[in-house]
Amino acid sequence: MKKLSVADSLFLRVERCSHPMHFGTLQIYRYPDGDAQSYIEELVHYVAEIARTIAPFNQRLRPPRYGIGLPSWEVDDNIDIDHHIRQVKLSGTDKDEQLIELTSRLHSSILDRSRPLWECTLIDGLDGGRFGAYWKFHHAYWDGVSALNTMDTIILSKKPDSLASDRIMGVRGNNVFESEKRDTVSVIARKYFHSFSQNIKSIQELSHNNKKVKRRRRKVSGAKIPGWYTASSSFINSPVSKNRRIATVTFSLSEFKYVATNTKSSINDVILAVSGGALRRLLVEKGLPLDKSLIVSVPVSLRKKSSQVDTGNAISDVLCEVGSDIRDPVERLSSIHSSMIASKRKLVSLSKTAIRNYTLITSFPFALSQIFGLTKGIPIPYNFIVSNVVGSEEPLYLNGAKLESFYSPSLLFQMQCLNITVVSYAGKLNFSLTACRDTLPDLDNLASYIRQEFSALLDSVQSIR
Amino acid sequence: MKKLSVADSLFLRVERCSHPMHFGTLQIYRYPDGDAQSYIEELVHYVAEIARTIAPFNQRLRPPRYGIGLPSWEVDDNIDIDHHIRQVKLSGTDKDEQLIELTSRLHSSILDRSRPLWECTLIDGLDGGRFGAYWKFHHAYWDGVSALNTMDTIILSKKPDSLASDRIMGVRGNNVFESEKRDTVSVIARKYFHSFSQNIKSIQELSHNNKKVKRRRRKVSGAKIPGWYTASSSFINSPVSKNRRIATVTFSLSEFKYVATNTKSSINDVILAVSGGALRRLLVEKGLPLDKSLIVSVPVSLRKKSSQVDTGNAISDVLCEVGSDIRDPVERLSSIHSSMIASKRKLVSLSKTAIRNYTLITSFPFALSQIFGLTKGIPIPYNFIVSNVVGSEEPLYLNGAKLESFYSPSLLFQMQCLNITVVSYAGKLNFSLTACRDTLPDLDNLASYIRQEFSALLDSVQSIR
Repeated sequence: MKKLSVADSLFLRVERCSHPMHFGTLQIYRYPDGDAQSYIEELVHYVAEIARTIAPFNQRLRPPRYGIGLPSWEVDDNIDIDHHIRQVKLSGTDKDEQLIELTSRLHSSILDRSRPLWECTLIDGLDGGRFGAYWKFHHAYWDGVSALNTMDTIILSKKPDSLASDRIMGVRGNNVFESEKRDTVSVIARKYFHSFSQNIKSIQELSHNNKKVKRRRRKVSGAKIPGWYTASSSFINSPVSKNRRIATVTFSLSEFKYVATNTKSSINDVILAVSGGALRRLLVEKGLPLDKSLIVSVPVSLRKKSSQVDTGNAISDVLCEVGSDIRDPVERLSSIHSSMIASKRKLVSLSKTAIRNYTLITSFPFALSQIFGLTKGIPIPYNFIVSNVVGSEEPLYLNGAKLESFYSPSLLFQMQCLNITVVSYAGKLNFSLTACRDTLPDLDNLASYIRQEFSALLDSVQSIR
Repeated sequence: MKKLSVADSLFLRVERCSHPMHFGTLQIYRYPDGDAQSYIEELVHYVAEIARTIAPFNQRLRPPRYGIGLPSWEVDDNIDIDHHIRQVKLSGTDKDEQLIELTSRLHSSILDRSRPLWECTLIDGLDGGRFGAYWKFHHAYWDGVSALNTMDTIILSKKPDSLASDRIMGVRGNNVFESEKRDTVSVIARKYFHSFSQNIKSIQELSHNNKKVKRRRRKVSGAKIPGWYTASSSFINSPVSKNRRIATVTFSLSEFKYVATNTKSSINDVILAVSGGALRRLLVEKGLPLDKSLIVSVPVSLRKKSSQVDTGNAISDVLCEVGSDIRDPVERLSSIHSSMIASKRKLVSLSKTAIRNYTLITSFPFALSQIFGLTKGIPIPYNFIVSNVVGSEEPLYLNGAKLESFYSPSLLFQMQCLNITVVSYAGKLNFSLTACRDTLPDLDNLASYIRQEFSALLDSVQSIR
């Protein structure tokens, strides 16, 4: 039994039916040679085996005893496999469109807190010998980087002929959080007061760090680092309603590398520039003002990539003006690049503890407004999130089925109707757009704008050279 | 714009993520001759046309102005068709099992209150040239009888060759609640105080009726009519968790008629006897006490069956000891029969207004506990609901596709983990069992017990003759 951290449990506190706190991954595989039907049957057994033996797949929430403190994770010994592993087949004429529509629906429904907080839907019926798998994980389990690590190292393999069941045998057991004896009332009281005094110390430390952070910000010269809660509310900062809309765009990673190299920027900068340009096109389409740039939050992982299963959340974020006020794509990229360099320098110069505290300070008012579900008169910390996760460079296999592409529909906080999450995988860069279905009914347009914006940027870079 | 009645709006007040207040219908059709793909495409257009033009399919909630009073229905002019009409295909080996598992999942998720409160999922992939349609309706729209009437008369037809689009033309327009001008503050205030004074009058009337009801109960001699809130809590009266489990059983209507005729009881009595017997078997299996009978609530429609679309709720209910304390099936049926005769006589002797008030009085403490989500120390009004809805005797067609069978997964109130709803249709009697997935993981056993219990009853009746 392992207690949740404050960061993990926040995702439970802010969750509502209208903005569930799970993220998803939509994977598209090619069937290996042989009978597809028996492959899927074996796969269901494989996932069921994972569900029963590997954390966090076998972990469910246990409320704090006497209602004091944080909830814990406990092993669910009686897991309802049919609830967690589902099978459907696509219907209708345009199968790829149906896949995205189905994913939107699956992504809209909230997880059941009385069970392990994940679901897996195997989706048959795609053309060209392919099938899909949509996984849903609660953010209280872990962050996207951690989920990807587990996927890449335990569930998937770099070897096409690797036997999945052998891999599970290796990790089983040591990843299951061990059950502790139940605490008595006096032990709980002691732990509670210990945690209380730790919090007091932490608040003193925070105040010190806050001053340090402010001093450092002054030292960074030239580049624009937007302050927290200085973003102007845009149309995407409306109340989030219950249903989601998903859109995807895929690029060749080498083209993004080409642009990054020739503009002395990073792939992440190019992703931000393309996102900012696409949003600018959407603002133009809607006749909305372009004078002030939208501000995005860029999550930064505090975790070193490792092959070990590692649950929980370890994320901070930097803010960046995404250049929706700049018409020229190359100029926009250059502005983003210098802003990101300055922000990252600031973050790197702080210790890991200081970063965690900094994250707590900056996100505190936002977390409060989310917990109390406030939607009006609350300053917004940023306009939307653009997240970039580095996946495997080599192709991966699921029991011999090649993973062809990989999308990551994410979660929406209240008053944040758009999220762009990008995952690189095997030479491709996959954009996933997650949106409130009511605020962005035209999400497909935004996906087209991302495509157009990258073409424009590529053309400009090629013409400059 | 039409205001919701108090009864309709109660379903909104008691709704939680863990116990959504919608009911469903799962219909299984046989494809007509010709191309199945183009049939489905035409069907999607047909349902989309209904969604845009016919109430309540085009109606969404509008919160009361200034937060005072009851919400209203308003026309959604910009209905998101892809959200309401979905298409999937079954996967896996046992298609009928997959159909029920899929229905359980679809039935578990709550409707989006910002949109018209229904969904339709067309389910392909069944064997033998059949397809399924699962419809979900919020109970605030209407009750099951009203939904069935609309289905039978507008969406379906008794003629195999009837053109659906012609039928829609006939009803379109006059069923759309007309928009009224928005009320000013003073008008709202006046309406509010008028409704307040009406409530005062109603309370005086209720008190008078209550005495009348009590007097009448004394007059009914012999038969057991259980009082409200006298039921003992059983294992099915546990907190309801988020997910549902569905099971179905189908009988020949003529066999039920045979038993009813030869025991001088009604088909409804036989349904109750079989349900009570099945629950007794489940109690025996679990080693639970059998000394006191479980008490069921039997909804009675206050609505005359008509061909007109009629929204809203018009239901009262009578209580009945379901004979789970009686071992002999014929004796159990006889006890249920006399109890139901006495209860119905009581209800018939009251005026329609008195019945509505009686329903309000008896369900008031229950409604309060549901609104405040209370789960402990609250007396329960009854153990579970057994509902019997009379459907069409003749076969019905959907654009030429014959409706073969028809199930009705229902809703669960808090602390009510089981619902049995029975619909008769074209010579068959279809039982739908809806249960809390955690409290009744063995729902398939209960379905088998219903089958066994009817066999036992049939054998007894045949041996007596």
